[in-house]
Amino acid sequence: MTYCLGILTTSGLVMAADSRTNAGVDYISTYQKLFDFSVPGERVIVICTAGNLSITQEVLTLIRRDLKGQLEHSLNTLPNMYEVVRYVGSKLREVSDTHRPWLSKDNIDHQCTFLVGGQIRGEEPFLYLIYSQGNFLQATPETPFLQIGETKYGKPILDRTLRFDTPVDAAAKYALLSLDSTMKSNISVGPPLDLIMYRTNSFEIGHRAEFVLGDPFLVKVRKFWEASLRRAFEEMPDIEWNRSHSSPSSSLVLPVPDAIATD
Amino acid sequence: MTYCLGILTTSGLVMAADSRTNAGVDYISTYQKLFDFSVPGERVIVICTAGNLSITQEVLTLIRRDLKGQLEHSLNTLPNMYEVVRYVGSKLREVSDTHRPWLSKDNIDHQCTFLVGGQIRGEEPFLYLIYSQGNFLQATPETPFLQIGETKYGKPILDRTLRFDTPVDAAAKYALLSLDSTMKSNISVGPPLDLIMYRTNSFEIGHRAEFVLGDPFLVKVRKFWEASLRRAFEEMPDIEWNRSHSSPSSSLVLPVPDAIATD
Repeated sequence: MTYCLGILTTSGLVMAADSRTNAGVDYISTYQKLFDFSVPGERVIVICTAGNLSITQEVLTLIRRDLKGQLEHSLNTLPNMYEVVRYVGSKLREVSDTHRPWLSKDNIDHQCTFLVGGQIRGEEPFLYLIYSQGNFLQATPETPFLQIGETKYGKPILDRTLRFDTPVDAAAKYALLSLDSTMKSNISVGPPLDLIMYRTNSFEIGHRAEFVLGDPFLVKVRKFWEASLRRAFEEMPDIEWNRSHSSPSSSLVLPVPDAIATD
Repeated sequence: MTYCLGILTTSGLVMAADSRTNAGVDYISTYQKLFDFSVPGERVIVICTAGNLSITQEVLTLIRRDLKGQLEHSLNTLPNMYEVVRYVGSKLREVSDTHRPWLSKDNIDHQCTFLVGGQIRGEEPFLYLIYSQGNFLQATPETPFLQIGETKYGKPILDRTLRFDTPVDAAAKYALLSLDSTMKSNISVGPPLDLIMYRTNSFEIGHRAEFVLGDPFLVKVRKFWEASLRRAFEEMPDIEWNRSHSSPSSSLVLPVPDAIATD
């Protein structure tokens, strides 16, 4: 699995990804999943990838080929982030179409997803999630983060704390904790972690860091966080047990279309 | 969805469940998913259910029918928790066998899972997870909690903090926070929450509570927890950005069986 996370706030953009790839539990390797296509001073474009590695790699190859060939439409020339995300989505559709029939024959999952974040001069910053089908979602003030891959373990920490007006420096810390929580709960998500922080209207990546396995700062953050959680638990009010509760026989039973009801 | 959680520690057992059932987003209702079959003084048996509601309900009906008919083999007579979990598993197999062929015709999910926890005089406490196929897992000192249903959102908080020697009162708080995190991140998991705490060798449920929507204690706990997380964030060391990182071109690329690699 992968876990990639993008956060868009009023003051900037954070993009983060792990680097573990697995083709079954006995074939685990390291692949970069966060790619910087920025042209400093003019545009910042960062792409994260999750899903079928052969497809995401080929999409990136096509993107790089267009850049190298100095084609009319490339990440260096497209006029705005909307065109950028449509362009990446169309590359994804092109590669998927080539391979899907063959993968389907053997029931191999061809799904993959992309995060595309950045800012092009003349616009505000944008963050998009591109689905396997090439359509895309945009981060908004109400939902300022987008995730791909193994998204669930790292979501509660963001749901509890992150807002559109969170300073981008704080958002970078949230991102690191969200990745660390995911690594802790799912062994198929693992370091090195790639983390990028971008300040709105700076038009260059402000900070980029890679955290390798056993990185002292990562160890320090995890220890700090777990100690903080334990302290918070210790200070948490005791459960007030004395309250009404329904016995099994008094539970409300409503008619429900049983055949499809799941709980 | 459902989220049910069982925790087995040296000092006791905690079982917890939400009560939201959905058959599609436009058919959401409330069903109890935590059932107490204890015989105070002699045995404590608590069952939680997740999955296809028609099947889990019918399994409980058969269990209750055996109790009412005072059959030789019932939850009141089985000599140990191992026999109890085999018995519940066999009921599940019986009900599944009846319905599976019909559900399969319309591609309806027949999967369901059970948690069975408790203690019978003469034994230590046990906690089991029964799979849809009727086989089962046991909680152990290394992995003292078992989850069914929507398990991921509530797992990081347990992975970070819970151990086999955690006092059972504290484990009950963890359980409540784990459920609350899940509710916060997945709207199909919802109150009332059912929570049971059992102390080893007491042979009766020590505490049971139901937390309805807007329960003042639940609101207090959530506020406290989110404030604690925010404070912990504020105190968290700033990211040390100055470190080596690999550029895209220097990333290690190993051969991988591309057709099946997912990241």
